[in-house]
Amino acid sequence: MNIDNQHIVAARRLFQEYLAAQVAGRYGDAESAVQRYVLNNGGKHVRPLLCLLTAEAFGGDIQSALAAAGALEMVHTYSLVHDDLPCMDDDDTRRGQPTAHKAFGEAQALLGGDGLLTDAFALLAGSGSEHDERMLGSMQRLALVRELATAAGSQGMVRGQHLDLYWTARRGAGLDELNGIHRHKTGDLLGASAAMGAIVAGASGGVVDRCRHFGQLLGLAFQVQDDLLDDSAETGKSRGKDRQAGKLTYLALMSPEAASAAAAAYTQEALETIKSLPSSAVLIDFVLSLLGRTY
Amino acid sequence: MNIDNQHIVAARRLFQEYLAAQVAGRYGDAESAVQRYVLNNGGKHVRPLLCLLTAEAFGGDIQSALAAAGALEMVHTYSLVHDDLPCMDDDDTRRGQPTAHKAFGEAQALLGGDGLLTDAFALLAGSGSEHDERMLGSMQRLALVRELATAAGSQGMVRGQHLDLYWTARRGAGLDELNGIHRHKTGDLLGASAAMGAIVAGASGGVVDRCRHFGQLLGLAFQVQDDLLDDSAETGKSRGKDRQAGKLTYLALMSPEAASAAAAAYTQEALETIKSLPSSAVLIDFVLSLLGRTY
Repeated sequence: MNIDNQHIVAARRLFQEYLAAQVAGRYGDAESAVQRYVLNNGGKHVRPLLCLLTAEAFGGDIQSALAAAGALEMVHTYSLVHDDLPCMDDDDTRRGQPTAHKAFGEAQALLGGDGLLTDAFALLAGSGSEHDERMLGSMQRLALVRELATAAGSQGMVRGQHLDLYWTARRGAGLDELNGIHRHKTGDLLGASAAMGAIVAGASGGVVDRCRHFGQLLGLAFQVQDDLLDDSAETGKSRGKDRQAGKLTYLALMSPEAASAAAAAYTQEALETIKSLPSSAVLIDFVLSLLGRTY
Repeated sequence: MNIDNQHIVAARRLFQEYLAAQVAGRYGDAESAVQRYVLNNGGKHVRPLLCLLTAEAFGGDIQSALAAAGALEMVHTYSLVHDDLPCMDDDDTRRGQPTAHKAFGEAQALLGGDGLLTDAFALLAGSGSEHDERMLGSMQRLALVRELATAAGSQGMVRGQHLDLYWTARRGAGLDELNGIHRHKTGDLLGASAAMGAIVAGASGGVVDRCRHFGQLLGLAFQVQDDLLDDSAETGKSRGKDRQAGKLTYLALMSPEAASAAAAAYTQEALETIKSLPSSAVLIDFVLSLLGRTY
């Protein structure tokens, strides 16, 4: 048991309270039922926690990082809602609950996702009030908008989804293509999560860049791990569903042993990126707790 | 012939050149084919022009307003792409061309729309370079992000779409409900277009508010006019398609004569909102040119 875990537990509780308040404030009415439903549907809150813990690691105020953490969760959640739609992965359940389009219909799920994505930028922009300006200045808020929009947009997460569709339809993708997909699809938003924490903490451009790279590598490690879990009985998904659906997975290209070794190597590389930075102990602890083993 | 029309022609040419450069720079690769296709598919560019002309009317630099104009067009275009999807309006053609999902498939159209919406905020945020900062300061850029995200998000355009689905499914909507739908669905983004022009010009909060209200009223005028056009043979749509599809239209609630009178009244109210402001002549000219008649 590492005492750093107390930071993680405290950050998780803080974020969950913040998210609940945001949902109540923004999505309390009948017109926002989809947004409320999907944000309330649990999840590990990896991206918000990565943002909060990175901000804290670099001397930032964790309260000031909450808007960035909330925006990251909203963008991640929109991506799941759209990804579950019939024209994409056509998933009926997510975390043991009916997916948004199963519960509300396709049109409402599409719109709910659109709303979450857009609202994330309103959250980052703040109200323009003096209180919001004290929490985070305009230049920092604008840097957060730039970071998130770049990571989630046509050159980021959307590109990863596009490449996934492209290679799934054509087959023949090798390890380079698979890494390219996940670097964008999973890595870019995780990279932004760490980078946004560093921006809130007022870190230098070089540190922000290293945090982004750290998060991107984590994305690859998580994805390999996901594929390994998909192949076991441990997730809410049916066993091996992705592989059966003809999705590209690491296990189509390598043995489980080789995949485990690849996850370990990506994790190691991610940790190398940040370990020379001051106060990265909590981040390292967080990564190890997520990946469920010590490398 | 009004000399103010030269401003409109010049602003339109300037925007079209800017948009072409953005498309070439951002969407030149194979992964961005949907974004390129839909942004190149013409359109009247009402929102960008409203933004540019408002900026100019209040003494702003029209070059500095181009990013805001581009972001508005990207958000408007994303909304059309998603609106055309089978789970929404299920339209096969738009401006005489196959809709995005007809040309590229549903999944790619969904992603292309997601990309455009996200990229709009990256465009507003700028690169952070000195050149971009000279064009528009951080506080103004952040105000633009706030304005656009609020107008397009769950309390704005998305809410309008939601209300449209809700009342179309239930029937029984009266004029109040129809106005409520279009105030959000069409009015909020037009309101943001004028407000963003005023923000670029450094106008006071009160002027920005009046510009927003002006644009929202224009949205109602346009929508009534659209319903009148849909009922005639003048658009690319099949005649009366919306009405036949059971969509809520003003003509389901009133005679064509009453609808014409309503469009005139909304236009008049919109113009009243701005006519006491200095230099609003070009805006008034623009509105009258769009609505195709003099009230």
